[in-house]
Amino acid sequence: MSQRPYNFSAGPAALPEEVLHQAAAEMLDWHGSGMGVMEMSHRGREFMSIAEAAEADLRELLAVPANFRILFMQGGGLAENAIVPMNLSRGEQADFVITGSWSQKSAKEALRYCDAKVIASNAEGGHLTMPDPAGWALRPGARYVHVCTNETIHGVEFQALPDLKALGSDAALVIDCSSHILSRTIDWSKVGLAFAGAQKNIGPAGVTIVIVREDLLGHALAICPSAFDYKTVADNASMYNTPPTYGIYIAGLVFQWVKRQGGVAEMERRAVEKAELLYGYLDGEGAGCYVNRIDPACRSRMNVPFQLRDESRNEAFLAGAKARGLLQLKGHKSVGGMRASIYNAMPLAGVQALVAYLREFANAPL
Amino acid sequence: MSQRPYNFSAGPAALPEEVLHQAAAEMLDWHGSGMGVMEMSHRGREFMSIAEAAEADLRELLAVPANFRILFMQGGGLAENAIVPMNLSRGEQADFVITGSWSQKSAKEALRYCDAKVIASNAEGGHLTMPDPAGWALRPGARYVHVCTNETIHGVEFQALPDLKALGSDAALVIDCSSHILSRTIDWSKVGLAFAGAQKNIGPAGVTIVIVREDLLGHALAICPSAFDYKTVADNASMYNTPPTYGIYIAGLVFQWVKRQGGVAEMERRAVEKAELLYGYLDGEGAGCYVNRIDPACRSRMNVPFQLRDESRNEAFLAGAKARGLLQLKGHKSVGGMRASIYNAMPLAGVQALVAYLREFANAPL
Repeated sequence: MSQRPYNFSAGPAALPEEVLHQAAAEMLDWHGSGMGVMEMSHRGREFMSIAEAAEADLRELLAVPANFRILFMQGGGLAENAIVPMNLSRGEQADFVITGSWSQKSAKEALRYCDAKVIASNAEGGHLTMPDPAGWALRPGARYVHVCTNETIHGVEFQALPDLKALGSDAALVIDCSSHILSRTIDWSKVGLAFAGAQKNIGPAGVTIVIVREDLLGHALAICPSAFDYKTVADNASMYNTPPTYGIYIAGLVFQWVKRQGGVAEMERRAVEKAELLYGYLDGEGAGCYVNRIDPACRSRMNVPFQLRDESRNEAFLAGAKARGLLQLKGHKSVGGMRASIYNAMPLAGVQALVAYLREFANAPL
Repeated sequence: MSQRPYNFSAGPAALPEEVLHQAAAEMLDWHGSGMGVMEMSHRGREFMSIAEAAEADLRELLAVPANFRILFMQGGGLAENAIVPMNLSRGEQADFVITGSWSQKSAKEALRYCDAKVIASNAEGGHLTMPDPAGWALRPGARYVHVCTNETIHGVEFQALPDLKALGSDAALVIDCSSHILSRTIDWSKVGLAFAGAQKNIGPAGVTIVIVREDLLGHALAICPSAFDYKTVADNASMYNTPPTYGIYIAGLVFQWVKRQGGVAEMERRAVEKAELLYGYLDGEGAGCYVNRIDPACRSRMNVPFQLRDESRNEAFLAGAKARGLLQLKGHKSVGGMRASIYNAMPLAGVQALVAYLREFANAPL
C-alpha cells in the first residue's frame, strides 16, 4: 500500500492505521460471531465483552484506582460542561480556571446550574501562559475546581496537575483532558473527575470518557436527565441508554494499540520527541518565517498553533502542504493561522515530514 | 462469500450488507481524501458534504417539509425523554399516552421538567392493544402530547397517527418513532416533533435523529444544556458540539441504500410482506406451539414478540436457532419469551428462514 497522507486534524483526528485495518477486516463478522460490531445488541455477550475489555484496558493504561468509575457517555466535552455541574455542584459554588476557549465555555455553561466563578485566568496577553496555582483565588466553599489541562485551540498545557489539598482547598479537581488523554500519566490523588471527548487523542467522535471518584456520585440535581446522572450511568455499567457501541469498540482497539506500543509512558516519550522536533524548528531555524508566541513552559505537546509571519502566504502554505500529503493544518477560525495536532496516532515520521515542508516553504523564493 | 447469519436483534440491529461492505472499503480512504471518515474534522469540506447529503437524503425519503429542521444529536431515546420536555414544555403541561415500556419511561422522565400527565394507557391487560385516540383525556393547556408510535419491547404499533387538531387539541404531537422510522411514511401535518435513536431501523448506535417544526424552537428551559437546546443545535447545523461523525456517515449510507431499494414506500411494502408471513405462521399453522397475544390490528411490523407455549423449551429453541444462523431472538428481559425484530435491513429470505425453523422446531419430537 502506498503511504497515507499525514493528518494533523485537531479532532476528529487521525487513528492508528493498524486500528483502521482491523476495523475494516472485522466489519461484517467480529470474531466469528456472524455479526459486525455495529449490529450487536449492547446487552449481548459479544458486545459486553468488547465494552469490558475497553474499560479494563483504559483502567490499566491510566492506572485508574479502584475507587474511580470509568463511564462511557455521549455528547462530548460541550455536554459535559453542563453534566459536570449538574452532578457535582449541588447548586453551590464551583471555581473555574480560564486558560483558553474550552475552559471559557465550561465556566459559562456552569452558570446555569451553580455559583460558577472564574478564580484565575490567562486571558490577559492572549492565553499565552498558564496561571500559577499559587495565585488562584480558591473559594473555601467550592464543590469543585474546573481546569482544562490542554487547550486544543490555544495550545497551552498544564505540565503538572495543581494540588488543591496543598493549596488548602477541599474541592474536587475536575479536569477536561480531552485533547491529551493517554499522552501522559494522571496523578489520581489530585483528581476528583476527569473527562475527555474521545475524538482527539483516542479517535471516534461520539464517545465521552468520564472517570469519576465514587464519593462524587449520587449528588445530581433533580433536573439532571437520568441518562446523564453519573450514578445512574455507573450503576448500569454505561448501559442505561444504548451506548455508542461502535465508538467504544474503536476506542478499545486504540487502547490495545497503545498497550502494544508500550503504554502511556511510551506515548509520552514519543510526544516529547515530536513536540521538541516541531517547536525546535519553529523557534530556531524557522523563526524567520513562523512564530509561536506561547510561553515555552506552557506549550502543548499535542496541539501546536503557529502563524506565518507573512499571513498573506497562508493559502499557498496550505495548498503546498496538501500537495505533499500533509492534511488539515488550518488553524481554528477563532485564532487563525495554522495548527498541527500531533496526537498519539501521529508517527514521528509525520512530524519529520511537516518540518521538512516547513523548511522547504520557508526557503522558497516568494 | 458464504451466507451471513440472519440477525434479529432489536437494536443495535443488522445493517444492510452492502452498507457494511462500502464502509469497510472506505475505512482508510474516503473518496480519495487520504482520510477515513472517522479521521475527518467535522468542520472540513469532506465531512460537511457527508452530513449534508445524509440530511438531504433523509428529508427526501421522509418527505420532510421545509418548515421542519433535521437535527443529528446524541444520547438516544432515553436522553430525548429529558431533552423534549426541556425544549417544548416551557415547564407547563405535557400529556403522555402509555403504550409500553418506552412511553412509560418518557412520561416518568418528563416529571422532572413539567406537569406531565398520563392521559391514556393500554397497561390494563398488558399492553396488548392501542388506546383509541377518541378516548384520550387531552388537556387544553398541554404544550405537547407524547406517543411512542412503535413499542420495541411490547410489539405494538400505531397504524395511523392521531390527529390532535381533529380531537380539538392545539398541542404539538411528539412521536418517538425510533424502532419504525423509514418503514412507513409520516404525515407531517399531524406532527410537531419526531425523534428516533438510529440504532434500530437505521443502524449505528450513538446517533439520534430529531425532526422538529421550526416554531417549536427557541423555548428551552434555562436549565437545558446548550448542547441539547434544539435551537442551538439547529442554528449550528448539528455541529455545536462535535457530532458522532462516523454514525452519521453510516446512517447516510443506509439512507442511500433505502433510496436504491425504492424508498420508504418499498420498505413499507416489504415490511407488510415480512410481517404477514411471520404473524400468519404464528397465528395459523404454528399456533399450537407459539403464541402472540397482541391485538392483530395493533401489531408491530418491526418487532414481533412471541412465546413458546412450553417455555421450558426456550433454551433449546434459541440454541437450535443459533445453530441455523438465526441470531439474537431472545425476548427482552422485562417480557421474556422471544422477539424477532425484522427491520428494513432484514431481507424476506431471513423471515422465510425463521418461519422454516419455527415449523421445524414445532414439529420436532420432544
